[in-house]
Amino acid sequence: MGKLLDSINSPEDLRKLSESELPQLCSELREYLIDTISKTAGHLASGLATVELAVAIHYVFNTPDDKLVWDVGHQAYPHKILTGHREELKTIRKKNGLHAFIWRGETPYDLISTGHASTSIGSALGLAVAQKRLGLSNETVAVIGDGALSGGAAYEALNNAGEMKDLNMLVILNDNEMSISHNVGAVARRLTTILTNPHYVKLMKGGQQVLKKLPAIHELALRAQEHVKGMVMPGTLFEELGFNYSGPVDGHDVLGLIAILRNLKAIGGLQFLHVFTKKGKGYPPAEADPIGYHGVPVFDPDHGIEDIKTSQKTFSAQFGRWLCDRAEIDPRLAAITPAMRVGSGMSNFAARFPDKFYDVGIAEQHAMIFASGLAAGGLHPVVNIYSTFLQRAYDGIIHDFALQDLTAMLVVDRGGIVGPDGPSHQGCFDIAYMRTVPNLVIMAPSSLDEEYLMLNTGYACAHPCVVRFPRAEGTESGRKIGADETIKIGKARVLSDRGGDLAIAAFGPVALSLEKPCSELGITLADMRFIKPLDYDFLDQVGKRCRVLLTVEEGAREGGIGEEIASYFEEKGYRCRVLCAGIPDRFIMEDTRASILKELKLDADGIIERLKPWLREY
Amino acid sequence: MGKLLDSINSPEDLRKLSESELPQLCSELREYLIDTISKTAGHLASGLATVELAVAIHYVFNTPDDKLVWDVGHQAYPHKILTGHREELKTIRKKNGLHAFIWRGETPYDLISTGHASTSIGSALGLAVAQKRLGLSNETVAVIGDGALSGGAAYEALNNAGEMKDLNMLVILNDNEMSISHNVGAVARRLTTILTNPHYVKLMKGGQQVLKKLPAIHELALRAQEHVKGMVMPGTLFEELGFNYSGPVDGHDVLGLIAILRNLKAIGGLQFLHVFTKKGKGYPPAEADPIGYHGVPVFDPDHGIEDIKTSQKTFSAQFGRWLCDRAEIDPRLAAITPAMRVGSGMSNFAARFPDKFYDVGIAEQHAMIFASGLAAGGLHPVVNIYSTFLQRAYDGIIHDFALQDLTAMLVVDRGGIVGPDGPSHQGCFDIAYMRTVPNLVIMAPSSLDEEYLMLNTGYACAHPCVVRFPRAEGTESGRKIGADETIKIGKARVLSDRGGDLAIAAFGPVALSLEKPCSELGITLADMRFIKPLDYDFLDQVGKRCRVLLTVEEGAREGGIGEEIASYFEEKGYRCRVLCAGIPDRFIMEDTRASILKELKLDADGIIERLKPWLREY
Repeated sequence: MGKLLDSINSPEDLRKLSESELPQLCSELREYLIDTISKTAGHLASGLATVELAVAIHYVFNTPDDKLVWDVGHQAYPHKILTGHREELKTIRKKNGLHAFIWRGETPYDLISTGHASTSIGSALGLAVAQKRLGLSNETVAVIGDGALSGGAAYEALNNAGEMKDLNMLVILNDNEMSISHNVGAVARRLTTILTNPHYVKLMKGGQQVLKKLPAIHELALRAQEHVKGMVMPGTLFEELGFNYSGPVDGHDVLGLIAILRNLKAIGGLQFLHVFTKKGKGYPPAEADPIGYHGVPVFDPDHGIEDIKTSQKTFSAQFGRWLCDRAEIDPRLAAITPAMRVGSGMSNFAARFPDKFYDVGIAEQHAMIFASGLAAGGLHPVVNIYSTFLQRAYDGIIHDFALQDLTAMLVVDRGGIVGPDGPSHQGCFDIAYMRTVPNLVIMAPSSLDEEYLMLNTGYACAHPCVVRFPRAEGTESGRKIGADETIKIGKARVLSDRGGDLAIAAFGPVALSLEKPCSELGITLADMRFIKPLDYDFLDQVGKRCRVLLTVEEGAREGGIGEEIASYFEEKGYRCRVLCAGIPDRFIMEDTRASILKELKLDADGIIERLKPWLREY
Repeated sequence: MGKLLDSINSPEDLRKLSESELPQLCSELREYLIDTISKTAGHLASGLATVELAVAIHYVFNTPDDKLVWDVGHQAYPHKILTGHREELKTIRKKNGLHAFIWRGETPYDLISTGHASTSIGSALGLAVAQKRLGLSNETVAVIGDGALSGGAAYEALNNAGEMKDLNMLVILNDNEMSISHNVGAVARRLTTILTNPHYVKLMKGGQQVLKKLPAIHELALRAQEHVKGMVMPGTLFEELGFNYSGPVDGHDVLGLIAILRNLKAIGGLQFLHVFTKKGKGYPPAEADPIGYHGVPVFDPDHGIEDIKTSQKTFSAQFGRWLCDRAEIDPRLAAITPAMRVGSGMSNFAARFPDKFYDVGIAEQHAMIFASGLAAGGLHPVVNIYSTFLQRAYDGIIHDFALQDLTAMLVVDRGGIVGPDGPSHQGCFDIAYMRTVPNLVIMAPSSLDEEYLMLNTGYACAHPCVVRFPRAEGTESGRKIGADETIKIGKARVLSDRGGDLAIAAFGPVALSLEKPCSELGITLADMRFIKPLDYDFLDQVGKRCRVLLTVEEGAREGGIGEEIASYFEEKGYRCRVLCAGIPDRFIMEDTRASILKELKLDADGIIERLKPWLREY
């Protein structure tokens, strides 16, 4: 650690430094970030881009009295280092360690927990209004990435802010030309066009000269003045929304940033500053491969991360393979992702079938609406969204998928426990929030073979279908599954049945991990396959015969499918008891997926233990 | 009915007319609309605004081969009349009648069911991409109101469209300067500014002259040309997003519209046409009071609708009264609505406490995010959103309310059966999708007194609280309830208990309607009050004592709170059977609320009938 950084235990310490020391501090901070994250794993490339921004903001603004909101939080590691968590950074994303993203109350500088994109402007607007209402003169700053700016909530907030009177708020666009995968959308294109044009500064100056010569149509001149930037700069959109646009400026020139931030602070009002940063800045391997260095494992900084082969055994990778197989035989396939091409296993598909691939940007609502339009127009859409982000598109499931009853498929990745990304990213709620919706078929594969069959089945179904799986590897038989092979809708797969009086109804891959113990202990075990519709034949058999049925799902117990089964048994009056295993009614913090599942007793051992009191011979 | 309209049974018939006949047709159509809706009730003012637009679109475009998407559908009555449903219009919003909004398949001209705002551009984009992929050269047209344009999904779609290559799509902004309440946001302000400026046409021409004289900085000139409209017109925002903006034009000049639509159709590409219309056009009382004439009861067109006193006995009105009472004593209160000031009972509050009132526009996501910022900043936000629209803000419940665990209140109006607005507007799912979320307290008042107490209780609670009630009138005692009067969290209210072995656990106003029959029949009855946390003391008593517990909720049975209770009884091993009454697993079509509840056996008679087989003496 450098000696300047060593002295910084809070932004107050930072503000004691002279400006001339700040470039050195930035250098030390960057080095510390690389050094620490290479030893502990975590998000790297985004943080390297915001070193100067974090220093400059905390230097100019009087945090925490002035309010600062970082969008999402991938980019907030330098902020965490500067706000008293330099040492704790090595615990990030670990059990009881620093939170993966921004966590309300982690320090007094963290007012709003984040994790999902596009909320920073709306949150900051709320903070700014509150400051004003309470008669405080504090400033409010939101930092949002170019990717997050494609989310509708960001626009809703900009639009609403433009309506507010006499409000001080600074929105900083941290434009690194790349969201997690890459940037999409018209706004991104505009920004890129201008940034790649070396003449823009000259042009801007030219434009101002032209305007000075404008004839004396007074009102036109005024309007023209407002819009002159639009001729040569990408800010017109934000000006239209009522902000004063400045930039783009170099986000790695800490002294330049400080000068500009001081000016904007002095001017007040609704300010929009466009800052150009580079993901991975200062660490050449990360600059060269910012996607690879978005989230990193432990690595040797002198050698960079090894070319880690992405596991081909994940449910995500299997989805990608199925997608390619299907695209080869069906010209109507259309695959949609809201900026999660890599994580969803769609990279290869996107490269091979670019005309069938739609990355709509960080815009989950639009992903669903767009898909319904594609389906109504005669194509066959397959949308892949992470469980946690699907919360953003919930009305899309109801209004745009189920209500239309179109032929369309939704693939829910990251269903269940995700792990180190923590509470904002766990996929706990999708079973509960989806199964209440009519017209849906919802499947949960236990293996990669099952996943392939379910994708076939969903694709062959004339109604909206969902295939839901966790962020995990799955088993596969190696058998080549044909494109026409499907499974019967609403039919479970009994994995073990010796006619005993204990039974387990399991959803998802946990079913397979229970096969051996259940078989040994004589417990009847079904891989339920369908969350909706349920296999009532199987349930009736169990209800009539067994003493206890344990339901197992990797999803919230409250609202989970286990409750529906319990209610069904009550309705039928079966003597068989129903016990439900699921994720308890609290937010699940950072830890590895395996540790969390073990702690929640949702691994095979924990589940069998639950049945122990009922086992006659154990 | 006029003789021209009489001959129009499809857009094909319309296209046989000569242009010169169209003004007369519009006049007949408008008259027919007023005449019919005044006899049957329905949405009026929006449809009067789109008479010429509907005629012009169907005249110029070759529907249904060319694809047309109306946003929401309030405005689509003229479209329904022109597409073969002239006679059926009188059945709109009635059981088995025409759907309230656009319904996929109602005619071949209706491709996407709508009801929620801001989806038309995304749906149309999907349709346009599908047309292109399938090698068809059909046009695609979306018509979106200025209110719906404040929704983030509309922006996500515009942004995504700007990225598409070689796509033909026309977006028509039907700008009537007013969403259901009134327009909010920077975009709306810009549009209004320019529309109210009589000089804009002159200025536009002036601007073009100026540009011709620009010095020969070639690239600047090109850019300037692109942006000249931005100097004098409100379209720059849309141009920035990659659309070619035209307008604003008079939306009631049918021949003018036809000329422009023909031009835009010939030009192709991404076109954005800004049309200025007037809500209630052609019917002076509706022009004068477009909010009053948004949805109308049966009335005499010669006299206009009577000044109907909005019922003060609704749960919505009670919310408004509570809000005013609270605002008088708490300077930190901040009340937020996404453009539903009137429907949510907030008109009076907005007038009395404008500095505590925030109408954020049709932007449910932002409403929640903004509220979390207000709370983090030290204010006390109360957000009111209809159950069906809250689906749009689902992640706000999880990410922006529950995860933050801030002091904030969410009021869910229109929870349960809504009635004539049909399947897109029923509030069936909120109990299921909310109760799965940790950290929430969820209350369901049975009466207006209870509502007031629960609002007090939620407001006094340091965690995110929800108060959920239906679109209905409630009973009240007339007793003045103090600002400090609260109820115990998680404690039910037993309304009848003679120690019998049958029990009902009821959520919401249905509890009160069961009081008399339960009392007569000796059925134990609890007004459960809390959906979360449940009153386990009461449930334990019932579980240990009773033969049967019937749970009753006005929400989806699948995923409903009844299932959680059933699961709890199973977990505890109570012999008492749990039966669940709720809304069945299908979308509920248009009808009155009372009729639907009766049909679903969710009224008092239906509920008691459910227990009949168990009653020893009946």
